[in-house]
Amino acid sequence: MQMNDLIVKKRDGYALTTEEIQWMIRGFTDGTVPDYQMAAMAMAIYFQGMDRRETLDLTLAMLHSGDTIDLSGVSGVKADKHSTGGVGDKTSLVLVPMMAACGVKMAKMSGRGLGHTGGTIDKLESFPGFDTALTMEQFLHNVETVGMVISGQSANLDPADKKLYALRDVTGTVPSIPLIASSIMSKKLAAGADVIVLDVKCGAGSFMRTPEQARELATEMVEIGKGAGRNTVAVITDMDEPLGNAVGNALEVREAIDALNGAEPGELMELCYTLGSAMLTAGGIAADDAAARAMMQNAIQSGAALRKLKTLIEAQGGDASAIDDPKLLPTAPVQVEATSKVEGYVNQIDAADVGVVSMHLGGGRATKESEIDLRVGLVLHKKVGDYVNLGESLGTIHAADEISAEEAVKLLLGCYHIEQDPPEKTPFIKGIVR
Amino acid sequence: MQMNDLIVKKRDGYALTTEEIQWMIRGFTDGTVPDYQMAAMAMAIYFQGMDRRETLDLTLAMLHSGDTIDLSGVSGVKADKHSTGGVGDKTSLVLVPMMAACGVKMAKMSGRGLGHTGGTIDKLESFPGFDTALTMEQFLHNVETVGMVISGQSANLDPADKKLYALRDVTGTVPSIPLIASSIMSKKLAAGADVIVLDVKCGAGSFMRTPEQARELATEMVEIGKGAGRNTVAVITDMDEPLGNAVGNALEVREAIDALNGAEPGELMELCYTLGSAMLTAGGIAADDAAARAMMQNAIQSGAALRKLKTLIEAQGGDASAIDDPKLLPTAPVQVEATSKVEGYVNQIDAADVGVVSMHLGGGRATKESEIDLRVGLVLHKKVGDYVNLGESLGTIHAADEISAEEAVKLLLGCYHIEQDPPEKTPFIKGIVR
Repeated sequence: MQMNDLIVKKRDGYALTTEEIQWMIRGFTDGTVPDYQMAAMAMAIYFQGMDRRETLDLTLAMLHSGDTIDLSGVSGVKADKHSTGGVGDKTSLVLVPMMAACGVKMAKMSGRGLGHTGGTIDKLESFPGFDTALTMEQFLHNVETVGMVISGQSANLDPADKKLYALRDVTGTVPSIPLIASSIMSKKLAAGADVIVLDVKCGAGSFMRTPEQARELATEMVEIGKGAGRNTVAVITDMDEPLGNAVGNALEVREAIDALNGAEPGELMELCYTLGSAMLTAGGIAADDAAARAMMQNAIQSGAALRKLKTLIEAQGGDASAIDDPKLLPTAPVQVEATSKVEGYVNQIDAADVGVVSMHLGGGRATKESEIDLRVGLVLHKKVGDYVNLGESLGTIHAADEISAEEAVKLLLGCYHIEQDPPEKTPFIKGIVR
Repeated sequence: MQMNDLIVKKRDGYALTTEEIQWMIRGFTDGTVPDYQMAAMAMAIYFQGMDRRETLDLTLAMLHSGDTIDLSGVSGVKADKHSTGGVGDKTSLVLVPMMAACGVKMAKMSGRGLGHTGGTIDKLESFPGFDTALTMEQFLHNVETVGMVISGQSANLDPADKKLYALRDVTGTVPSIPLIASSIMSKKLAAGADVIVLDVKCGAGSFMRTPEQARELATEMVEIGKGAGRNTVAVITDMDEPLGNAVGNALEVREAIDALNGAEPGELMELCYTLGSAMLTAGGIAADDAAARAMMQNAIQSGAALRKLKTLIEAQGGDASAIDDPKLLPTAPVQVEATSKVEGYVNQIDAADVGVVSMHLGGGRATKESEIDLRVGLVLHKKVGDYVNLGESLGTIHAADEISAEEAVKLLLGCYHIEQDPPEKTPFIKGIVR
């Protein structure tokens, strides 16, 4: 087999066979298919797409490029959740303990990633001593005994995807539905859960700009999951404005603790309940959505979900005192209000631009080597649809110093679109694909 | 500037600026833009194309990536010719001396290339001692004093094209009109001639399958040439069947000598006259086509053109005795006739497949390291439109041994499509683009 022939075949719009895809991914992983040929192939896939069988074959070939996690020794329903990524997304911090409180085994491997804030494991490092580099034995032990675990990704899980993603990132080939779907799903399948719930974001703060694109990606991933014999559900959710109020690492942990304490429910809890309901019904733990919601509300109101978060932190060696006393979380020395220079209804808050404010403050990683400042970020007081008076605060900036705070205030004000008329609000949950 | 941004821009169908193209080619040549990014860019160009300004910018950027030949010190009209490549194409062997006899200065740099036979410089090595590795001083001296030179390509002429072509060859990105046009034209412009005549082949034996595709490529190249201030003409010619009768290195030299000796004119001379007329009129040496053809016929009939070939060989250190006595050319030990098993009219001779016969006999290079056997090849006795009787020879195979000869006979018979009705012949010269 010659890689050039496969590139020409895909370039000309033909489907690659199962054998060709397996050969290509094996060669790319071991280096016999060089990066430059894989880059040309990725661009050909960008233009010509892949049919469902090819996408499943690509996913399985990547999945088998490295180790997989065998959860068959763990009792009960094993579930995993993935979000395509959004600004202010602290869902896992709420969902994982809430699901564990409902009896689901949550085995989550999470990347650190680049972006406006750190990933879930970065956020959890707000608890001193929290260990995210577990051995496979510890990982499996914690799932079974604690009911949940959140760990950094093992080095040899899905090496083909690591290599291909790094290549796509610098060759203009990220936004391809078969490539995105196979990248996400190969990692999720390798992580071994029976039930996979996907949160597919759409809107200005996410990769898929329209609900239609998001539905296409969601459908592709659900079909891959089913094709691989896993119970897979995708929820399509709005990411036009940031999710909830906090953007930043420790600030998001604090918002998650508040939510688990039963704070006034907003879109964050609506998302957690929707994802949780999908998980509980797909796993056969709840008979229907109403039963699932009742279980979850009970887990919150009884304090069981919050206690599970505490257990999770302690089981991975962290100091969980901040759960009872959130003032102990890492705190930025400078807090400044961003006050509105106009009055009217908030019509839009550009989520991607809010992410830039967090990056500017030092809350995210520009390169793999960057250090994250867990303390910084922002807390929005006004969301889309709210009325703002002149001089009222739109949000609080949490900064390391006065200079970066001042610049962040300016940037944040630029994220708000305030008009005389209230906006038409679109539904937050755009759809569910099963 | 970030290469990834340029790839995304092209992928999304936007034109790259002059500065972006210059930056990209500079980086690709010096290695700061890696192969994998250039491969993705080439595939994006394959799908999105380039407008005329971009193609000219790409050509000029590649042209300036290395040395260029300065012919300004050479007197008179300096011309160069390029063919997009076909089977049995010995045109340069006839055209170069014929033009020199008409007073055009021919400064030709020629690659060895891969394919069914060697390039022009390989064919000329049929004359013992012929030196194709001239210094720049010798090259310029010979153009001025002999009126012509045919040399191998200098190492640092157009390094960006060398690198890009090698990359395209293994990444499924060869058949892109802006990439083909800029590759050919950057080399031609670097070689310094004022008048550039292009022979763009179309049909089964060439890269451009249809006359429409060939015209598109021809127009693109002529526009580049004009944009760079050179007098450029392209002739679109048929390559459905091989050109002339001989395919093979020494065999083609022999056919060229016969043509210069005034052999019965066929398509080979029609092509040489058409290209020559374009050159003589574009260079202002002949007033019109009729005057140009009269000059060329005189050069053939007077023997001046053949004498020029002899001078060319001798000026580059070769033994030209074979010009007067072609039996001295390298000769294959085995000659076998391929006799027809059917009778009727030759409707088609697949040129690409005839090229494969020559490769099989050892007349071409499969890799850069392959040795060419100058002696082998085939001479066709029947061309499209001819009537063939049962048992009549379609062509003579010239082989190194009996075994390869037998296989070549079988292959050659498979190249002929013989039917009861005569074919409809299409014109050999499909058009001229000025």
